[in-house]
Amino acid sequence: MAVGPGTLPQLHPVAGVRIGITSAGIKRPGRKDIVVFELDAGTAVAGVFTKNAFCAAPVTLSKAHLQKGQIRYLLINTGNANAGTGKQGMTDALACANALAQETGVAVEDILLFSTGVIGEKLPVGKITPVLPQALANLTDNSWEEAATGIMTTDTRPKAASVQFVHEGKTVTLTGISKGAGMIMPNMATMLGFAATDAKIAPALLQSLLSGAADRSFNRITIDGDTSTNDSCILMATGHSGVEVSAENPALLAQFKAALEQLMLDLALAIVRDGEGATKLVTVKVEGAKTTQEALDTAYTVAHSPLVKTALFASDPNWGRILAAVGRAGIEALDLDNLQIYLDDVCIVQEGGRAESYTEAAGKAVMSKEEILIRIVLNRGDVTETVWTTDLSHDYVSINADYRS
Amino acid sequence: MAVGPGTLPQLHPVAGVRIGITSAGIKRPGRKDIVVFELDAGTAVAGVFTKNAFCAAPVTLSKAHLQKGQIRYLLINTGNANAGTGKQGMTDALACANALAQETGVAVEDILLFSTGVIGEKLPVGKITPVLPQALANLTDNSWEEAATGIMTTDTRPKAASVQFVHEGKTVTLTGISKGAGMIMPNMATMLGFAATDAKIAPALLQSLLSGAADRSFNRITIDGDTSTNDSCILMATGHSGVEVSAENPALLAQFKAALEQLMLDLALAIVRDGEGATKLVTVKVEGAKTTQEALDTAYTVAHSPLVKTALFASDPNWGRILAAVGRAGIEALDLDNLQIYLDDVCIVQEGGRAESYTEAAGKAVMSKEEILIRIVLNRGDVTETVWTTDLSHDYVSINADYRS
Repeated sequence: MAVGPGTLPQLHPVAGVRIGITSAGIKRPGRKDIVVFELDAGTAVAGVFTKNAFCAAPVTLSKAHLQKGQIRYLLINTGNANAGTGKQGMTDALACANALAQETGVAVEDILLFSTGVIGEKLPVGKITPVLPQALANLTDNSWEEAATGIMTTDTRPKAASVQFVHEGKTVTLTGISKGAGMIMPNMATMLGFAATDAKIAPALLQSLLSGAADRSFNRITIDGDTSTNDSCILMATGHSGVEVSAENPALLAQFKAALEQLMLDLALAIVRDGEGATKLVTVKVEGAKTTQEALDTAYTVAHSPLVKTALFASDPNWGRILAAVGRAGIEALDLDNLQIYLDDVCIVQEGGRAESYTEAAGKAVMSKEEILIRIVLNRGDVTETVWTTDLSHDYVSINADYRS
Repeated sequence: MAVGPGTLPQLHPVAGVRIGITSAGIKRPGRKDIVVFELDAGTAVAGVFTKNAFCAAPVTLSKAHLQKGQIRYLLINTGNANAGTGKQGMTDALACANALAQETGVAVEDILLFSTGVIGEKLPVGKITPVLPQALANLTDNSWEEAATGIMTTDTRPKAASVQFVHEGKTVTLTGISKGAGMIMPNMATMLGFAATDAKIAPALLQSLLSGAADRSFNRITIDGDTSTNDSCILMATGHSGVEVSAENPALLAQFKAALEQLMLDLALAIVRDGEGATKLVTVKVEGAKTTQEALDTAYTVAHSPLVKTALFASDPNWGRILAAVGRAGIEALDLDNLQIYLDDVCIVQEGGRAESYTEAAGKAVMSKEEILIRIVLNRGDVTETVWTTDLSHDYVSINADYRS
């Protein structure tokens, strides 16, 4: 089950980025479970990573390499997360990175590693390192769609997006892939995003652009409130378009930022649409908050409420559950008589109770749609924040209760 | 579905407390939906209430009356929560209190009101006030079990507990009832607890004893993380046992405290056992925390994780999900290599990964039980905190997705 058709757009290659996919048979023989990115020398790379204290060995390794290396290769495996594996996990991660370094002639710190899959089982290094030459032999600049499929775990469909804009006659391309399903699957651990552009961007600016865009996309989606041990999102800038994005050209910078945010939001929402058991894509928008924190607290309290999520699954315009979730979000001195809650354009709550104009039929009509906006207007300030989530369905329970068996 | 047999213990009457039950037909004709408590003059009364900003009209009223009145009557209705009803809600609550005041000859501020049931629908005052004489005519000192049934909403069984101890030849009795099901049902809004004792206790001490006991019982249980608009817990002390509990007799005070905590925990755990769709009673105990806050943050993050809860439903010893939940609890500088996680006595996590001694069979044996202890030893300090929760089952989704239809 997933929301929307899930058809992929045209994925424009990014000059300077080549991708090779192969099979190591980590979980199933023949399954394409190894993806290698090769980057031209001089490519700037930025990354954001999970804040989970139990971050996986490859996350620890990649964070360190990103600081000191000139990244040339990304090695991604599915089927095993190499998380919760103690000291052995780091030994195994290093073994994979060293093998790829030997094969390619780059320094080991020029390699980033990503693993997703079962937690707590030893990474099968002996299956991965022998197939690296094959992955390198397969490198092409037009494998984004195959890569999107190669990084899937419980995802029911590949996720990718591509954006272009023209600056002074030169085309700038941004293309990316993502995977997700549940926001965390400690058994299949989780959310990955890889995006590349042919714009030229200095590493510090690239990092700040990635962090900002991730904050308004990957960090605003939630399926079950969990965050994974392996979540990572990477942005690579090869510079081959000949267009340099920098603070010295604010208009171009703004244009690139908008394109990047669109790309990242497309990739993030693809994860929500394919959330475990998802039948609805739900946008929770909080307006008129005093601070970003109170806007987010309100939005996440609503988005995480199992009662709101089951009502969404049932297409039940249960405004009482939304109201109660807002009420327990911890907003100081919340004026109940001065807030409104809407389902799309239908006002459901005002003056501390059900809106006078509200009819069950109007609420039901919105709730029956596949994509729903819950808009909460606090009337306390001018901050707006948006998060995206899914409903909570029988399939969510089935998938997560039956996953390992 | 519910955990354990659910048989009620013997419920000892509390001298000075009489209870009358009748039917107002609020939701269904003939359903016993009105419960009245009558207290002897001089009874001390304490209360703790929901912190939800959208608290219901009867909660606002009762909090005010508790401050200024000499409480003589409690009026409880099910079938309608009188929450999310705006100004009309307070008018209707006052109408009920005034009717009972007229009927009994006490001042209106000597009455507490409690409502539980559908949110956002006008309280049917016209059904409630005419049956108050019948409720008063039914007053007896031996109706605790009938009262436990009378306050049920989606509860599948009545919840009550009773404790006695002897002090210098005199028997002190504590008896109480509770209702719950989901921690919040904004449609059926929620958790209520009423307890009485024949000990003599000054109001300020009674309030402090109730707050303390509620913090270690009602405030430590969670079914779906929601808190209701109507949650209330009341403790009444008539003094008729002739035993006075005060700070001047620390041994007696400690004995009473222990009895009260046992009573309140029994009442609270009865709510968890009857949680919506619950098939497991899960105790999450965090030991060795630096602060109460970090112990509770850890315990609640585990207890609220849908992935942990679905694994519990599946009897799947999925230690990776517990580990990942601990990892995202926000504990600063958590030393992963120096914590242990146990299922009952089975160590599942140590040194940052799966415990060497762990076997899937041992984990599965614990997870297959109806009552499970998840013990997380942080080894950072000496604070221990415990919370109780349930699993997340298909029935939870069914109950909450289908409730209003």
